[in-house]
Amino acid sequence: MAERIGFIGLGIMGMPMARNLMKAGYELVVHNRSQAAVDELVSEGAIPAASPSAIALQTTVIITMLPDSPDVRDVVLGEDGLIDSMDAGSLLIDMSTISPVTTLEVHQALAAKGVHALDAPVSGGDKGAIAGTLSIMVGGDATDFERAKPIFEVLGKTIVHVGAAGAGQTVKACNQIVVALTFEAVSEALVLGSKAGVDPEKIVQVLSGGLAGNKVLELRGASMLARNFQPGFRIKLHRKDLGIALDTGKSYDVALPVTALVSQMFASMVAHGEGDLDHSALLTHLEELANHQVGQSE
Amino acid sequence: MAERIGFIGLGIMGMPMARNLMKAGYELVVHNRSQAAVDELVSEGAIPAASPSAIALQTTVIITMLPDSPDVRDVVLGEDGLIDSMDAGSLLIDMSTISPVTTLEVHQALAAKGVHALDAPVSGGDKGAIAGTLSIMVGGDATDFERAKPIFEVLGKTIVHVGAAGAGQTVKACNQIVVALTFEAVSEALVLGSKAGVDPEKIVQVLSGGLAGNKVLELRGASMLARNFQPGFRIKLHRKDLGIALDTGKSYDVALPVTALVSQMFASMVAHGEGDLDHSALLTHLEELANHQVGQSE
Repeated sequence: MAERIGFIGLGIMGMPMARNLMKAGYELVVHNRSQAAVDELVSEGAIPAASPSAIALQTTVIITMLPDSPDVRDVVLGEDGLIDSMDAGSLLIDMSTISPVTTLEVHQALAAKGVHALDAPVSGGDKGAIAGTLSIMVGGDATDFERAKPIFEVLGKTIVHVGAAGAGQTVKACNQIVVALTFEAVSEALVLGSKAGVDPEKIVQVLSGGLAGNKVLELRGASMLARNFQPGFRIKLHRKDLGIALDTGKSYDVALPVTALVSQMFASMVAHGEGDLDHSALLTHLEELANHQVGQSE
Repeated sequence: MAERIGFIGLGIMGMPMARNLMKAGYELVVHNRSQAAVDELVSEGAIPAASPSAIALQTTVIITMLPDSPDVRDVVLGEDGLIDSMDAGSLLIDMSTISPVTTLEVHQALAAKGVHALDAPVSGGDKGAIAGTLSIMVGGDATDFERAKPIFEVLGKTIVHVGAAGAGQTVKACNQIVVALTFEAVSEALVLGSKAGVDPEKIVQVLSGGLAGNKVLELRGASMLARNFQPGFRIKLHRKDLGIALDTGKSYDVALPVTALVSQMFASMVAHGEGDLDHSALLTHLEELANHQVGQSE
């Protein structure tokens, strides 16, 4: 009989991850805030559940993939939350990107009932979720990590146990810093070079070959030049993630001057109604500053 | 008979580039401000020349690889400069990283004498120079680019004709923006994650696998964690390059907020006597701000 897993949060990331688990032979019991996603997955063979608590009655391993810290707190600790029904010895794998502080709060509340927990945020975007090639950064006990590993191997390619509870979220915050600042770097370069008269495709081509090379150029360079800013990963979520990084920095007295500056740029974009664009649209903020559109007809 | 090339500027980049050309069968006539480098290369078979002008009497293709705009202006337009002796139809390939403004000045002065010129700055550092795997971004006429291509193919791997005179320098400025901001991104991530208690090697490992992946992590991550900040490419030169980027931005009304901020960090490091460290030492500036050393014993 197929192993049964609970899955809560069927968004742009959670939906393809759940599908990959079903394709790999797992039986899924699913719950989502909006019912349409549940119905879609049920039509593909998943079992619906009316609440997180109802999932916990049917499964011993539950994955959560939710937007933000309050969502995870609600689903685990709130009314009809997982904590009401999870048995001692069962395992929560939270793959959301949330605050390390909330992660520790959740870990501790569950531990008091003998429930195990891993924080296992991912990187790689919707493309990585669909392809099953996510990077997964896991915090928690080594035995729990080994238990969850077959599941991670369905969802991702780079799977690393990075430390104790919360370490996964810390590394994810580091990841989001580097991704955001790389978009900023590429955007400043493209606006400068393009306004100075160079074909931006040449810039992408040359920079990819040297020490400036990065995955943003490789995976998003073409779509940025094509001015395709459909998410992908939304500005408002990346802004949330930089907020987590800055809060973590505040907790540990770490100054993050450029993270702070780029976070302010994201905030301005949200204020201008651009929060639902892909994070690569940071390019348009730099274009706005320079009153110049990259790749426009001369 | 071997084709003869002039080569001026035998520094950390120029020396291995000259050696690769000699290995490929070119006969080199060389000049350098400090004589020791000339003597070294002469012992390997190169022909010494007492001045740039003396090189121009013996060759029709000349490469310059010099530290900054004034050096190129001096070597080409100054006393005993190339312009005194270069014949019409001969070709100057300036592979230095200098201001696009100086590049245009040099191109125009040479063009008035019928001398052809390419700006062909490189990326890839001393490692790329030694391995012959540089990225070369070339500005100038297409026929001159084709003429120089066999030489570029000895020195580099990614060789792109990016546009008219000056375009090579513009793209190099873009490259230096992305490299500097990537060092900043990686440094903020490493200091945050490490001070929050995560093994920095795990951070490098995980970030390399996703959208945060970049060549800085791949090629310099290990040396940064080993605290090896020997150049490589010096802070003071990268600061010079960001100055070129900011000047170019000023010429074209392009705001480069993060380039400006990181340039100020480099300036502070130069003020603290750290200008001769490798640019990866930007990490130490962020460590200083957070009063925390990445990878120190707990």
